[in-house]
Amino acid sequence: MIAVMSKDATPHQIAHVQALLRQSGLDPVIGEFEGATLVITENEAPGAAGVLETATGVERVVDGQGAQQLTSRDFRSADSRVAVGGPDGAVLGGDGFVVIAGPCAVESQDQMTGVVDAVVAAGAAMLRGGAFKPRTSPYSFQGLGVAGLALLAEQRSRTGLPVVTEVVTPQDVERVAEESDMLQIGTRNMQNFALLREAGASGRPVLLKRGMAATIEEWLLAAEYLMHMGNGGVVLCERGIRSFDRSTRFTLDLSAVAEAKRRTHLPVVVDPSHSTGRPHLVGPMSLAAAACGADGLLIDVHTDARAALCDGAQALSGAQFADVMTRLRPVVEAVGRTLWQPRARSLTSV
Amino acid sequence: MIAVMSKDATPHQIAHVQALLRQSGLDPVIGEFEGATLVITENEAPGAAGVLETATGVERVVDGQGAQQLTSRDFRSADSRVAVGGPDGAVLGGDGFVVIAGPCAVESQDQMTGVVDAVVAAGAAMLRGGAFKPRTSPYSFQGLGVAGLALLAEQRSRTGLPVVTEVVTPQDVERVAEESDMLQIGTRNMQNFALLREAGASGRPVLLKRGMAATIEEWLLAAEYLMHMGNGGVVLCERGIRSFDRSTRFTLDLSAVAEAKRRTHLPVVVDPSHSTGRPHLVGPMSLAAAACGADGLLIDVHTDARAALCDGAQALSGAQFADVMTRLRPVVEAVGRTLWQPRARSLTSV
Amino acid sequence: MIAVMSKDATPHQIAHVQALLRQSGLDPVIGEFEGATLVITENEAPGAAGVLETATGVERVVDGQGAQQLTSRDFRSADSRVAVGGPDGAVLGGDGFVVIAGPCAVESQDQMTGVVDAVVAAGAAMLRGGAFKPRTSPYSFQGLGVAGLALLAEQRSRTGLPVVTEVVTPQDVERVAEESDMLQIGTRNMQNFALLREAGASGRPVLLKRGMAATIEEWLLAAEYLMHMGNGGVVLCERGIRSFDRSTRFTLDLSAVAEAKRRTHLPVVVDPSHSTGRPHLVGPMSLAAAACGADGLLIDVHTDARAALCDGAQALSGAQFADVMTRLRPVVEAVGRTLWQPRARSLTSV
Amino acid sequence: MIAVMSKDATPHQIAHVQALLRQSGLDPVIGEFEGATLVITENEAPGAAGVLETATGVERVVDGQGAQQLTSRDFRSADSRVAVGGPDGAVLGGDGFVVIAGPCAVESQDQMTGVVDAVVAAGAAMLRGGAFKPRTSPYSFQGLGVAGLALLAEQRSRTGLPVVTEVVTPQDVERVAEESDMLQIGTRNMQNFALLREAGASGRPVLLKRGMAATIEEWLLAAEYLMHMGNGGVVLCERGIRSFDRSTRFTLDLSAVAEAKRRTHLPVVVDPSHSTGRPHLVGPMSLAAAACGADGLLIDVHTDARAALCDGAQALSGAQFADVMTRLRPVVEAVGRTLWQPRARSLTSV
Repeated sequence: MIAVMSKDATPHQIAHVQALLRQSGLDPVIGEFEGATLVITENEAPGAAGVLETATGVERVVDGQGAQQLTSRDFRSADSRVAVGGPDGAVLGGDGFVVIAGPCAVESQDQMTGVVDAVVAAGAAMLRGGAFKPRTSPYSFQGLGVAGLALLAEQRSRTGLPVVTEVVTPQDVERVAEESDMLQIGTRNMQNFALLREAGASGRPVLLKRGMAATIEEWLLAAEYLMHMGNGGVVLCERGIRSFDRSTRFTLDLSAVAEAKRRTHLPVVVDPSHSTGRPHLVGPMSLAAAACGADGLLIDVHTDARAALCDGAQALSGAQFADVMTRLRPVVEAVGRTLWQPRARSLTSV
Repeated sequence: MIAVMSKDATPHQIAHVQALLRQSGLDPVIGEFEGATLVITENEAPGAAGVLETATGVERVVDGQGAQQLTSRDFRSADSRVAVGGPDGAVLGGDGFVVIAGPCAVESQDQMTGVVDAVVAAGAAMLRGGAFKPRTSPYSFQGLGVAGLALLAEQRSRTGLPVVTEVVTPQDVERVAEESDMLQIGTRNMQNFALLREAGASGRPVLLKRGMAATIEEWLLAAEYLMHMGNGGVVLCERGIRSFDRSTRFTLDLSAVAEAKRRTHLPVVVDPSHSTGRPHLVGPMSLAAAACGADGLLIDVHTDARAALCDGAQALSGAQFADVMTRLRPVVEAVGRTLWQPRARSLTSV
Repeated sequence: MIAVMSKDATPHQIAHVQALLRQSGLDPVIGEFEGATLVITENEAPGAAGVLETATGVERVVDGQGAQQLTSRDFRSADSRVAVGGPDGAVLGGDGFVVIAGPCAVESQDQMTGVVDAVVAAGAAMLRGGAFKPRTSPYSFQGLGVAGLALLAEQRSRTGLPVVTEVVTPQDVERVAEESDMLQIGTRNMQNFALLREAGASGRPVLLKRGMAATIEEWLLAAEYLMHMGNGGVVLCERGIRSFDRSTRFTLDLSAVAEAKRRTHLPVVVDPSHSTGRPHLVGPMSLAAAACGADGLLIDVHTDARAALCDGAQALSGAQFADVMTRLRPVVEAVGRTLWQPRARSLTSV
Repeated sequence: MIAVMSKDATPHQIAHVQALLRQSGLDPVIGEFEGATLVITENEAPGAAGVLETATGVERVVDGQGAQQLTSRDFRSADSRVAVGGPDGAVLGGDGFVVIAGPCAVESQDQMTGVVDAVVAAGAAMLRGGAFKPRTSPYSFQGLGVAGLALLAEQRSRTGLPVVTEVVTPQDVERVAEESDMLQIGTRNMQNFALLREAGASGRPVLLKRGMAATIEEWLLAAEYLMHMGNGGVVLCERGIRSFDRSTRFTLDLSAVAEAKRRTHLPVVVDPSHSTGRPHLVGPMSLAAAACGADGLLIDVHTDARAALCDGAQALSGAQFADVMTRLRPVVEAVGRTLWQPRARSLTSV
């Protein structure tokens, strides 16, 4: 249950609402959303909602379903639109279908310029690239770190396109937020709650990947951690779940996209690269994602996959990416949407 | 490896080829395809292919990959087209996208007439309905059996549309083949090899559902059982795999559709009803299936889901099905195909 | 719900009980158990149990839980004991811990004699060996069939030990029942309901392997199919479920053993060979199975694993099997049981 | 590959070894172990090992297998013994079987005293209790935090038993290390690499739970993160993996215990509480774990499960725990080990 306080509610009024809930045996938590204070409880108590509605300072009361409160369609029935990168940026969750592309890992200026030129030419709306890479082995390439952030920011200013990059630990959130337009929480960190709280408080939109063994409910509750810190800019990303078949790296769960869109007002994008781990499946799964209601895609592109320092095996070449974009457009339009078109701009040289 | 014998090859020539393979330490099996005898081995032996090519009566030699022989693109690079129901029937695997619809279980003449009228009006190309139902509990409705076959055949003659129905045990194959146009092998029987052999020898096309925990390779090898009995009319059906999330009944694995299309020349259809088990997901998953390259759909429809004796919870109403067909058409056309249009015909009353 | 009719109940009394249940809106099925007729319904209806208790010919009424009726502890609270192979045979479900061993597939008389001598010397209580092998590929060795049954029967008469062997299709049940002491239903056939009905009617005890993706409830309901055909000699076998880790062939689910023992009165054995697929794991998992309450083991042994025609990779050598038996004894005794000791008998030569 | 430098190796010698490896195209990382510097590479290069062996300052060269270096039996063939809590503490990995017990979450002094008295009376060797709780929902009880650490430390000094408690974020490692004897990394943080590095550098032994969807290899590589920071005190904990059956909360994978013991020298313990989520399965799985070679157990106990603020449903009562200990002893002894006996000490009152 959520009590949305009016923007001019006094601390005393907020404290009173909390007291009322405690009297009903509930355990209220304070959140905020669009400048208003929220008093939130996971559970309900008979009559409690009625009592709150009459309390001074309460604007409205929302009866949520169990733990999913701010992310539920009860709290907000309309689709949320998440703007990334300012007035010239991209908007996820509206009519535009947003394709985010770039290398799995930022490796060098040359690599970035090559890949970015290719994806921008093909019509990408946003750029991706990992500076901090969570790797299974401590002896694998761990990403360029801060130097990688600078190379990514360089491409942002060169193209004017918004960039999303992964953050793997709370201490880095502030820095990554400064150098990018959107924070990515990876599949291995979906339930890294300290990281979620920090990212939720960062003020930056967040791309939240689904844990590789997370239920849809757990995924939405991870988004709840972000939102109750006051962050309305949450975008969900389905990236495949772990299953028994080795033909694909993970099993892309597109039903989860449609189901998440039903349960929550948040935009949902799909990562066909990490889920399938097979370049020849990226195209078909991109089209399928657009057809079933996804709001965008996150695609790995590398102009020299063999030399890639991370996950090269699954990356598309520039030409393959351009081909996917060509086949994607009619499907996006068949479901009544349009490919997000970034404002035309010349690519400056580095 | 496959030695395709010329149609006029003599038994002696065939025996000679078998002998040559045994000399190479291989274990040949006899199959047939389009009237020609095939001598097939799972494994290769150095030089064996070369030896065969010079043997009299051998038309061509195909080097397959491991166990997948007749179903592989090595044996046939072009897509197979499977015709169901004679000249007025439907063709799977070509440009037409074939929607098969009907109730999960045949229950009564009234139920069948009501459902069939609805799906025909909405443009279904084929009818489905189960007479023999494999049920988890011995105390659940097991289907009408032979009486159900008759009710289904009645709808076939009334509408002129081909019908597919499940067969669950070898003894029933001949009878079900007589009364229907296509045999369905269910997910629980995908590795019921005695049933596969009997269905393979039936001369009827077969719809082979993927086992709920079968790898793509196991699925294609089940199809191999059908094909090496001489049955070229095999259609694969992805119907969801077992996973950890209870939000859907099974996890629809659309990557498997694209991957199967790559490894085999056989048509692949998708069952969005049994996989998701949720009516509100049938539409989005139908569109996604069409977008990623499926050749058709198998959809549960029931005009009174609450009263359904089997899996009513997941069935679409006639109106919901019509809505899915409307949204499906533009996606099918966006990928360069057309919804299969059955020849116009008036529905006779029963 | 189960109405157990007295042994001298008349057909008219049975029909009356069915009628009473139909009046309560229930759908009764007839079963039998230990010579008594059973009238069974999956569901309950208010007051129905009370009405039945007063009907003539009804001995007792059992309120089961949903679909699990005859296999539930409500129907029989005490552990069932399943005798296999006559007075000199083995009993599963009692104090004795029964180790069943032999090759995965019957290959030849020499192979059988070698393996059987080894497992008998090490103290096996029963023999296993497959004559009909369900194989993923149609080109793999499919078993010796009838000839294999004869080789297995030969070992039975030579050793006096009961034998269990797999049956894969209804037509074979009668024959396999004649030539062996216990029928095995394999993991791929757990929901081959036509086969279950035939095996249930065979009069032979049945070893029912868990489907590789079957829930415990589905497994118990497959046993229900056997029992309601009048077969009380059902033994469950946990053999591993499909999961994501390739370190083992399947994931042995020992919790399922303890859980099944709680929900049902049937004996439960464990197959550490097919589940792990790794010889070095057979020992540890055998000990673990005994410790958590299993009633026996089913172990693959082959005296020349490299030459095995089926699953040799996972078979123990005779020496490895003897070592497992040695380490097993103290664990079996630590949980208050004893290794089943077959009556001493000299091994006649073939 | 690992180059173990002699303890008196100079920085120049170490740099030289790194240079040699780079010349071979390898990418060396510096680690330490038992006071010696290690130069580690994930990959091999022809001849590189030979070159290193002759370099000054190199004590020995170990050819590991791929990414698993310090945790592999190649680096250390004998079982590692991990001492927790000083001279009066417990040793994991030796002949003693160590039972760790306590509440899932630290709630209050009364709760702790009650539970601890019960588990100490029954023979627990170590105490557990969570102060920082990772919870799926932001609105659930998140643990008492620092206050919880104090309550746990109080029980440590009262009983003299070592305590293990979870740490969820790098910033907390130093504090938790001060207040406890062993750090626990939870299943959701198994691949929280920043946390692993911090815990690896803490000097405290670490209990590393397996990720609920982690392969054995991923689990061992997470341990590799801890070890190459110089931490030799790593204990693995199998706690169940995610699967399709809802009868248990997770699927306890005991094969993984035996497999991990084979691949690594590290101790492995089992958590039968969180894996099964069912009190009635904790006993059978505890016995099974001891039988298959585990080095200890981690068991949830709560004296008032109904009132528990976290996971009460799966906790054993004091009496149930005592019963498990009684049944556990003979199984532990049957595999040639003994229950770890903490030094007798009187329980002081708080």
